[in-house]
Amino acid sequence: MFNIPNHKIQSAEILCVGTELLMGHTLNTNSGYLAVQLAELGIPSYRQIVVGDNPERLRAQILESASRADLVLFTGGLGPTADDLTMETAADAAGLPLVFDQDSYDGIASFFTKIGRQMSDNNKKQAYLPQGAVILPNTNGTAPGAVFPCSAPSLSDPDHKAVLALLPGPPSEVVPMFTLALRPLLEGLAPYRFRTAYVRLIGIGESAAETQIKDLIDAQTNPTIAPYAAEGECMFRVTQRIQGDEDEDALTPVIEELKRRFGSHIYEIGTRSMKQVAFDLLLEKKWTVSFAESCTAGMVSSEIGDIPGASQVFRGAIVTYDNQMKETVLGVSPDTLMKFGAVSEACAREMAEGCRRVMGTDISVSVTGIAGPDGGTEEKPVGLVYLAVSDSAGTSVRQLTLRGNRMRIRRVATLEAFNLIRQRLL
Amino acid sequence: MFNIPNHKIQSAEILCVGTELLMGHTLNTNSGYLAVQLAELGIPSYRQIVVGDNPERLRAQILESASRADLVLFTGGLGPTADDLTMETAADAAGLPLVFDQDSYDGIASFFTKIGRQMSDNNKKQAYLPQGAVILPNTNGTAPGAVFPCSAPSLSDPDHKAVLALLPGPPSEVVPMFTLALRPLLEGLAPYRFRTAYVRLIGIGESAAETQIKDLIDAQTNPTIAPYAAEGECMFRVTQRIQGDEDEDALTPVIEELKRRFGSHIYEIGTRSMKQVAFDLLLEKKWTVSFAESCTAGMVSSEIGDIPGASQVFRGAIVTYDNQMKETVLGVSPDTLMKFGAVSEACAREMAEGCRRVMGTDISVSVTGIAGPDGGTEEKPVGLVYLAVSDSAGTSVRQLTLRGNRMRIRRVATLEAFNLIRQRLL
Repeated sequence: MFNIPNHKIQSAEILCVGTELLMGHTLNTNSGYLAVQLAELGIPSYRQIVVGDNPERLRAQILESASRADLVLFTGGLGPTADDLTMETAADAAGLPLVFDQDSYDGIASFFTKIGRQMSDNNKKQAYLPQGAVILPNTNGTAPGAVFPCSAPSLSDPDHKAVLALLPGPPSEVVPMFTLALRPLLEGLAPYRFRTAYVRLIGIGESAAETQIKDLIDAQTNPTIAPYAAEGECMFRVTQRIQGDEDEDALTPVIEELKRRFGSHIYEIGTRSMKQVAFDLLLEKKWTVSFAESCTAGMVSSEIGDIPGASQVFRGAIVTYDNQMKETVLGVSPDTLMKFGAVSEACAREMAEGCRRVMGTDISVSVTGIAGPDGGTEEKPVGLVYLAVSDSAGTSVRQLTLRGNRMRIRRVATLEAFNLIRQRLL
Repeated sequence: MFNIPNHKIQSAEILCVGTELLMGHTLNTNSGYLAVQLAELGIPSYRQIVVGDNPERLRAQILESASRADLVLFTGGLGPTADDLTMETAADAAGLPLVFDQDSYDGIASFFTKIGRQMSDNNKKQAYLPQGAVILPNTNGTAPGAVFPCSAPSLSDPDHKAVLALLPGPPSEVVPMFTLALRPLLEGLAPYRFRTAYVRLIGIGESAAETQIKDLIDAQTNPTIAPYAAEGECMFRVTQRIQGDEDEDALTPVIEELKRRFGSHIYEIGTRSMKQVAFDLLLEKKWTVSFAESCTAGMVSSEIGDIPGASQVFRGAIVTYDNQMKETVLGVSPDTLMKFGAVSEACAREMAEGCRRVMGTDISVSVTGIAGPDGGTEEKPVGLVYLAVSDSAGTSVRQLTLRGNRMRIRRVATLEAFNLIRQRLL
């Protein structure tokens, strides 16, 4: 690429530029995306940083990151406005003049033609790029990206140079530019490859799970086992670092040991979410599904609706937020509601059975509970949730006592609804 | 709080700790949340940083951030496991020993009692806190937070001290801890006060809206007017900085001008979301509501269910994901489905009317459309959505052509469903 001594990229930092990120008004999804990409390339990344559109602080941050890392990956601040300062600030930090690039100018002009809009004068600025930089074309916007070296001496290495790679801010531009233009450049510079597996568990808390495999976590250095907290479930990442042409699969024995220890708590070895696992089982069995929701209020339904092709298994849902609807639409008996209340084993059961009848599906799941913050009593506290699953073999009910706020209770109840489907179909 | 010279907090950095964030496997929502909170407190924040669970790098980052900022706000790494190193590393950087805190231990123990789980041995670690720290109780999890001073000399100020404030990682714990315990501590330390108003618009694009008030944006320095991108809507934040005892309301004249320019595009001056505005109108009129959803698949329902006290107006929803359900549950005529299809004005109309009939509510809204990625045709492309609103005065239908992916189409359709309610009730 460039004539950089010590060619291998052993470390990276991700630097996202934008006052809208710093103020918290725009959610930063670029950091996470790029982190995953770097991990897949085998480039360890040690820091993600957000700074605003302030040239002094940006310049200081560039030099600081460049002195620590071999690669600094930027997003944001390549736009046409006066606020967009990343390219000129980074070029200045690298000691490179900006020069007009006709190809980039033509690319910007043709982008405007394509979207049927007038190019404004200030877009011309986006065609000024650091001398000698590798230019990354933007297939989905105006600002080209650029890759160029920057000298940044550190205490341990007075000759340290970093590669600066600048990408635009909008995720819809970052993803294609990274994929098409930057990844191919970086592929040859990574020091390792990684082989990774995710082990996902339900029905066991994070610390209990970790205690159960503490000896493995402590003993393993390659592959490593790292826990990840998640809402209502937990996950371990097993990562093997591969050097050179080495080809031994060291993951499988570790995964086998985890299987032995966790047994049926493991619902997935891979990257599928619980709802995807349940969906895939339904698809495989060619079963149709419907939901009767009370406290989750459509969240279970909305989650399955999020999966492209959901209609292959998902028929519909009935959200009954008040008792009368439970009677009239789902056929829950007034007696049940009077004697046991809407948040009860009996009501959950009748909701699931009624839903299956109304929707005519192979399987139905119901959720009824108290999501809070109000409505809890000593006998039926906030977080009490009943789920029922009904198919031709019968109906069974699960009682949960969930902690957390309204949103968490609804989300974990939703996760458990999919878990019920999974367990019934296995 | 502490005996910190130069008591006012003039700057902050947000430091999120966790390898799961660094690897990109967990989306970092804490940074944005805390950034907004700091802005509201009038504390400028200049950097957000993510580091992993590596004690050396974490320690270096703490000292670096503490030497630059008056406040370093941490999240993450307070859990019970061996990976969770933030408390001990920060205490070490601050030169404070960890001491056992019986109150915190009792709090953790009673949390486990509350959730009916066994406290594990390693949770005891969470009760060791820096000597002299202000302890922040965790109302929604095990790890207490802590606030304590840290000496971190900088070139410009060899006596510089920063306040370190450590919060846990899970957003469900961060929000209550910040709100209940940390914000009150920080309120007195902010250098300015701000008076802020949000102006929220629908039915006009961000650049069109911005062009319409460009002269104001350029001319205003206090208050400032800043645009915020949002999905399917747009928003301006008007911010007046107040120094000392100054008390003049400079916001109102600016807001009046925005009202004059945007007229009925403005649906809220304040912080209420569209769904909250619709909910409040329903509440005010004492109207009940129900939804018939197809492409949104329960998202509209789930969104209203997210509002505490939703049951005051929300009766239920019927999600009909396939045509037969539209007929059998909502009473859409087979003729309509045959002649016009499920994604049609006529079907939307019959869905809303059928839903109102079945659910017996004052008003019903239906959504039917093509969320993609598959299922689009030349005549009915992905993004085509029909919404209908029905009450005793009649039924009206709106056609939308939305751009974006499946999730965006469903989310914007959901927003528009609430907008329909708002417009009908005004």
